[in-house]
Amino acid sequence: MDLLKQKILNEGEVYEGNILKVDCFLNHQIDCVFLREIAKEFHRLFKDEGVNKVLTIEASGIAIGAMVAEEFECPLVFAKKSKTKNIAPDVYSAAVDSYTHGTTSNVMVSKRFLNEGDRVLIIDDFLALGNALKGLIDIVHQSGASLAGCGTVIEKGYQHGGDELRAQGIKVESLAIVESMSHETGEVTFRD
Amino acid sequence: MDLLKQKILNEGEVYEGNILKVDCFLNHQIDCVFLREIAKEFHRLFKDEGVNKVLTIEASGIAIGAMVAEEFECPLVFAKKSKTKNIAPDVYSAAVDSYTHGTTSNVMVSKRFLNEGDRVLIIDDFLALGNALKGLIDIVHQSGASLAGCGTVIEKGYQHGGDELRAQGIKVESLAIVESMSHETGEVTFRD
Repeated sequence: MDLLKQKILNEGEVYEGNILKVDCFLNHQIDCVFLREIAKEFHRLFKDEGVNKVLTIEASGIAIGAMVAEEFECPLVFAKKSKTKNIAPDVYSAAVDSYTHGTTSNVMVSKRFLNEGDRVLIIDDFLALGNALKGLIDIVHQSGASLAGCGTVIEKGYQHGGDELRAQGIKVESLAIVESMSHETGEVTFRD
Repeated sequence: MDLLKQKILNEGEVYEGNILKVDCFLNHQIDCVFLREIAKEFHRLFKDEGVNKVLTIEASGIAIGAMVAEEFECPLVFAKKSKTKNIAPDVYSAAVDSYTHGTTSNVMVSKRFLNEGDRVLIIDDFLALGNALKGLIDIVHQSGASLAGCGTVIEKGYQHGGDELRAQGIKVESLAIVESMSHETGEVTFRD
């Protein structure tokens, strides 16, 4: 998606430790008008997949997930990262390692909101090693729902989480795939 | 907002410990088509306030905040609850007690995303004691921005956080104000 690549080049910043910072438009401050274009693109890519539910993970997946769900006129379910007293005990859960935070979270979805009748599109902002997606896919499988595919805004292609999922036959669509980046030059190159 | 009150009566559940559970449409599974109606109502209520930025707090404020920001064609900024290596050291922060979780979080907004030129509308899903709003208002004041007001979806009127803010001259609009509820009968009554 050219508009996204341009925005990454114009507004993104590369930091030491393999960090691509796009918090000015994607995951701290959110450019909601731009996000609508992102959501429309995901709808175009998955519109023939029979999607009736969008699944994402808190926190930065929620804004994009909500807009994608609105495009599909279906509910969004977001997986929660810690147990609160507002979550029913009856949940699907999976352990997810966070590359960014260096922590492991238990992510949970109430059993009331995913079941075998569902056809699920998983949406997230970033795909690197694929840990978050693998946890969400695990939850979809636990529920008996079927997986329509995974859509992520920015994939770090050189960490190969996306390639691994594609090799399993899962439809994974990323709107920009970063093939390399350098915090020394600030240069970012994309996969064709 | 009658549509919201009806939805609370039809789909909400009251639990012991002062919990109104609306996670089937507002804060776990999200009815995004319905949320658009919510966002339009907030736009109607604040459209003359010169809003150029919407501020919310992760996680359950994000979906509604994103849609409200889209209505105003302005950015959404969401305050983060814990320090990650993707957050700049240069942040505004405030301590927020969570009534639901029984914890205190340090919430943070990067100084890059709020400044004295901004006119901020704060959006959140719930208002009870007003702790989250007070923390966000503190952050707005730290930034030198001006506060257009606060919009919350459901206010627990009997906990008086909203009344306290209104008494300070802040424009606070809640789309449904619960005046009482009982986990024994399941009954919910609204303020007129």
